[in-house]
Amino acid sequence: MDINSIIAKKRIVGPKGELDKDEIKYFVGKWMKGEIKDSQAAALISYIYTNGLTEDEIIRFVVEVGNSGDVLDLSEISDNIVDKHSTGGVGDKVTLILLPVIAALGLPVAKISSRGLGISGGTIDKLASIPGFNPNISIQEFKENVEKIGISIVSQELNLAPAENKLYKLRNEIGCRDSIVLIAISLMSLKVATGSNKVVFDLSCGKGTYLDDRDSARRLGKLLVRIGKALGKEVGYIITLMDEPVGRCVGNILEIQETIKALNGNMSKDVEDTVVTLASIVLNLAYGEKDFATNAARVISVIKSGQAMAKFKAMVIAERTVMLNI
Amino acid sequence: MDINSIIAKKRIVGPKGELDKDEIKYFVGKWMKGEIKDSQAAALISYIYTNGLTEDEIIRFVVEVGNSGDVLDLSEISDNIVDKHSTGGVGDKVTLILLPVIAALGLPVAKISSRGLGISGGTIDKLASIPGFNPNISIQEFKENVEKIGISIVSQELNLAPAENKLYKLRNEIGCRDSIVLIAISLMSLKVATGSNKVVFDLSCGKGTYLDDRDSARRLGKLLVRIGKALGKEVGYIITLMDEPVGRCVGNILEIQETIKALNGNMSKDVEDTVVTLASIVLNLAYGEKDFATNAARVISVIKSGQAMAKFKAMVIAERTVMLNI
Repeated sequence: MDINSIIAKKRIVGPKGELDKDEIKYFVGKWMKGEIKDSQAAALISYIYTNGLTEDEIIRFVVEVGNSGDVLDLSEISDNIVDKHSTGGVGDKVTLILLPVIAALGLPVAKISSRGLGISGGTIDKLASIPGFNPNISIQEFKENVEKIGISIVSQELNLAPAENKLYKLRNEIGCRDSIVLIAISLMSLKVATGSNKVVFDLSCGKGTYLDDRDSARRLGKLLVRIGKALGKEVGYIITLMDEPVGRCVGNILEIQETIKALNGNMSKDVEDTVVTLASIVLNLAYGEKDFATNAARVISVIKSGQAMAKFKAMVIAERTVMLNI
Repeated sequence: MDINSIIAKKRIVGPKGELDKDEIKYFVGKWMKGEIKDSQAAALISYIYTNGLTEDEIIRFVVEVGNSGDVLDLSEISDNIVDKHSTGGVGDKVTLILLPVIAALGLPVAKISSRGLGISGGTIDKLASIPGFNPNISIQEFKENVEKIGISIVSQELNLAPAENKLYKLRNEIGCRDSIVLIAISLMSLKVATGSNKVVFDLSCGKGTYLDDRDSARRLGKLLVRIGKALGKEVGYIITLMDEPVGRCVGNILEIQETIKALNGNMSKDVEDTVVTLASIVLNLAYGEKDFATNAARVISVIKSGQAMAKFKAMVIAERTVMLNI
């Protein structure tokens, strides 16, 4: 087996171009070791971009990329490890509001977040704007916080799915950001690495996102659900049209302030709609409750009662190195 | 203009995917400066490999790659600057025999040769096996030798068409060696850099070469002629089936010994056929003499008379640093 024959195979459109498990394992492994050059990976990814992958190939990539570094095992904490993943957008603080709500609903939240990409800040950038907040606690502390408090959010600078990071950078370099297949591999491989099994995606489409329109977002969402099924994960998604920033504020510390206001019951209509919808999907995935109104009522109640705010506060206190008044 | 939009354009099959002069200049220039990464170049070359280039694009690439470093101007020596280029093969010592023959026919030979690639030794490796031979004389000495003796062969380690070298390595890495379009760009860009205007190509096809069959070699040959025409160069070619090594010996010093024997009139049938045919094409290109028998007779006469051997000897003496008996 060698990389040139793998590249040559992927030039072929149709069944003869399908890469088997060993070929994908070889590619990911050797690339991570530096034995396959970025130029060779770029040639392969370029052909995947134009010729696509079968669903079997996609799943093989998800497994190999997902297992390219450390893999978290949170099964001792709960059978329901919830994750929420947004494809991002300007002013998107939904993760920061939603996750304490989910924790308040009794579902453990073990969230690995990233720094910003392109023009939009990441969840970790926002949290790190809280004076004294340390997003780089160890995996051990992270697990302990999830168990004790029910929620922890840490930075992706751990060695989780390092091949995803490498693939993401390469896609950026060679103009392959907007491939549904490659986005799906990226998103699902992270879920393999973090061990979450109930995942809800917030797929943004429109200006300033990588998905042009609702149709692309829908195709991506359906693909994520199918990959999840193949890997024993329950996946839900919503599609958000993001032609405008989310909520009222844009900027890391301003968005933290908006998050605190929201968790105290004062949120803009668009943020509230998104949070309630996503949390309802999580309740559906975790408990099988399909009635939206029932789920929505539970979500609103944990916000009104202050339970969601309490979870946010406890999480920040557990990850702070300096005392704060929030 | 940016590299991602150039890559995206080349994904398009058909007229809308045609790169203009500025885009090709931008790519070659920025890649040479390291401002375009190898991964990005790999993506572009991968799409060129599958989608092809128009003849206008090919010529634009030849010009930009050919002018990416120093460009020799040998017009003060002669209007007829002859070059012979072989796509190579095991035991191929034709260049070493042919060039002294051409010099003996009164046509100046200014030849830049390379080291070996893959399994076959290059002309420079063979010459360097002569004790004391220095293939790295300066451009100035090289020009002086061409003027005084009528022949000089130097190593390609000068800064001639450095983008060709970079492109060649990349093609090797990503499995794009056998592209007719990319081979043509590579070959003709070197002729732009060396300023030769009567060029004869020996295109090898068959086992152990990059051209599978005669048909590919013929398509390449015709393309080289058309590129030459567009750039004011007269180009001829022959196709050699190279399923077996050329001549009697394989190995650098052994091939030098075979060259000396050949120039003394003792050559194998296959080598003689190739040398006589190529030299006749050169006479046709340089003097317009189309009759093969007339040309062949002149070629054989300069070998029989010892004039070709004298040129070889004079060239080696001029480039030696240690006295030799040959």
